[in-house]
Amino acid sequence: MNRWLSQVEQVAIVGTGLLGTSVGQALKAGGYAGRIVGIARRAATGARAKAAGGIDEATTELDPAVRESQLLILAVPLGAFDSTLAQIAPLAHDRLVLTDVGSTKGSVLAAAHRHLARPELFVGAHPMAGSEQQGPEAACATLFQDKPCVLTPEPATDTEALALVESLWLGLGMRLLRMSAAEHDQAVATVSHLPHAMAALLVQVAMQRGGWDVASTGFRDTTRLASSNPPMRADILSANREAVLEALDAVRNQLDAFTAMLERDDHAAVLAMLEASRAARERWLNQSRSAREDASES
Amino acid sequence: MNRWLSQVEQVAIVGTGLLGTSVGQALKAGGYAGRIVGIARRAATGARAKAAGGIDEATTELDPAVRESQLLILAVPLGAFDSTLAQIAPLAHDRLVLTDVGSTKGSVLAAAHRHLARPELFVGAHPMAGSEQQGPEAACATLFQDKPCVLTPEPATDTEALALVESLWLGLGMRLLRMSAAEHDQAVATVSHLPHAMAALLVQVAMQRGGWDVASTGFRDTTRLASSNPPMRADILSANREAVLEALDAVRNQLDAFTAMLERDDHAAVLAMLEASRAARERWLNQSRSAREDASES
Repeated sequence: MNRWLSQVEQVAIVGTGLLGTSVGQALKAGGYAGRIVGIARRAATGARAKAAGGIDEATTELDPAVRESQLLILAVPLGAFDSTLAQIAPLAHDRLVLTDVGSTKGSVLAAAHRHLARPELFVGAHPMAGSEQQGPEAACATLFQDKPCVLTPEPATDTEALALVESLWLGLGMRLLRMSAAEHDQAVATVSHLPHAMAALLVQVAMQRGGWDVASTGFRDTTRLASSNPPMRADILSANREAVLEALDAVRNQLDAFTAMLERDDHAAVLAMLEASRAARERWLNQSRSAREDASES
Repeated sequence: MNRWLSQVEQVAIVGTGLLGTSVGQALKAGGYAGRIVGIARRAATGARAKAAGGIDEATTELDPAVRESQLLILAVPLGAFDSTLAQIAPLAHDRLVLTDVGSTKGSVLAAAHRHLARPELFVGAHPMAGSEQQGPEAACATLFQDKPCVLTPEPATDTEALALVESLWLGLGMRLLRMSAAEHDQAVATVSHLPHAMAALLVQVAMQRGGWDVASTGFRDTTRLASSNPPMRADILSANREAVLEALDAVRNQLDAFTAMLERDDHAAVLAMLEASRAARERWLNQSRSAREDASES
């Protein structure tokens, strides 16, 4: 366990679903020797997280758990960030470092600034790991291993808070990336929120036009994200609305350009587009493969 | 080996790539005792198909292979169907039954009618199995097992030819579906060609907007089809142009409706769309799972 984390006597995990419970399990698997308190909205969920070995103690009360912790990980659904931060704020002492697992960062940082007396102790994080499954039982100590984690520190962010949060996610085996909240939200709109939306829209088109009988593995994979948790996805789309609308505009432009190629039966243009897409995807696959290898070697 | 196939002394497979070679391997694995001749454009490809155990004899000449066969399976790229059928036609005796593996059926049947003296002996087939890999080395005797195969007989199709072609694909372990060529082309436009196009367009959007650093498994799966063979895909899009254009229109309408929901921040409408898409996809997964189970039990 690294220097920074070893100074933390108690970690509070607010929200003990799949991600919160996995953070706890991964901390323990990594040798964290302090105490982990899980705060769940419902007592049953906390008990299940404890049974899954993700937390040492379960409670439904933020007080005194927050006051007695030095590090807090916010792992509630995106739609609950604002109200949860409002409740945490009066309990957040001036040595409490906070981070989160939210899929968007602009809305999360805005909530932190709105509620916290010392927002410079909040370091936004997006650990890019997940599962279509939900709940503490689906948690997994290796969920974060070798996956990217985006941190979105601001100019005013406290350097010791940043060091502690970096050591947390590094300790869970993640590859850290740093960018602004706006950059993050643009990027995930393109490579995550847009693909989720398009997967759902492709299913809508099949609902309208039929063809299910002949659908095979290609349709299955392209629409896999349409099986994601709808309330969670709706929250994310709402929180990152502006960037997603820009990404939807971009896909509409691509769609129009491609339709025009096909309308004039421009075989060469269609082929060139397909070749360029394939090459770009293969380049990305190779790069992310070597990034994963670098991470597991280090 | 079933009654119909056992009467066939020689099968000709025209085109010995992944699909052609797999048909030969699967025939042998199923106990077909006749002779399988592979006709390849290049001698080297035929030799590789023979080395892979897909054919007994390789040749680059249609004559006398076609004249001496009772069943011919056309497994050339879609863009080569027209010219290949033109060459086969003068050799096609009046007991030669033909079928194919083409991904579109309207264009294929049109070519059959254009060139063959007895188009009623041609039974269009689309075995819905494949791989991102190519060539005889990627062939696999179980490629077709439990997968759907669409047959597109016409009112004038010869009943014995249909029975033989049905027994071929059934013998390879496939679940048979029957529909018109137009119905088939509409269906695959929706659940195959459109997803292929959208996968490539999502990559184009990422090329334009960035975000590769934070792309993860969701992006990988949604864009998997963008790694498919570009010349093959371009041929398919061109052959099924009209149905694909209709499917692109449908996706554009869905995109517009979804954009409008998000623009007015209509959380309930977004959630309802995501819920409906998820439910439809899960329903399909369950149905195709039980269809597979039925097929393996029968």
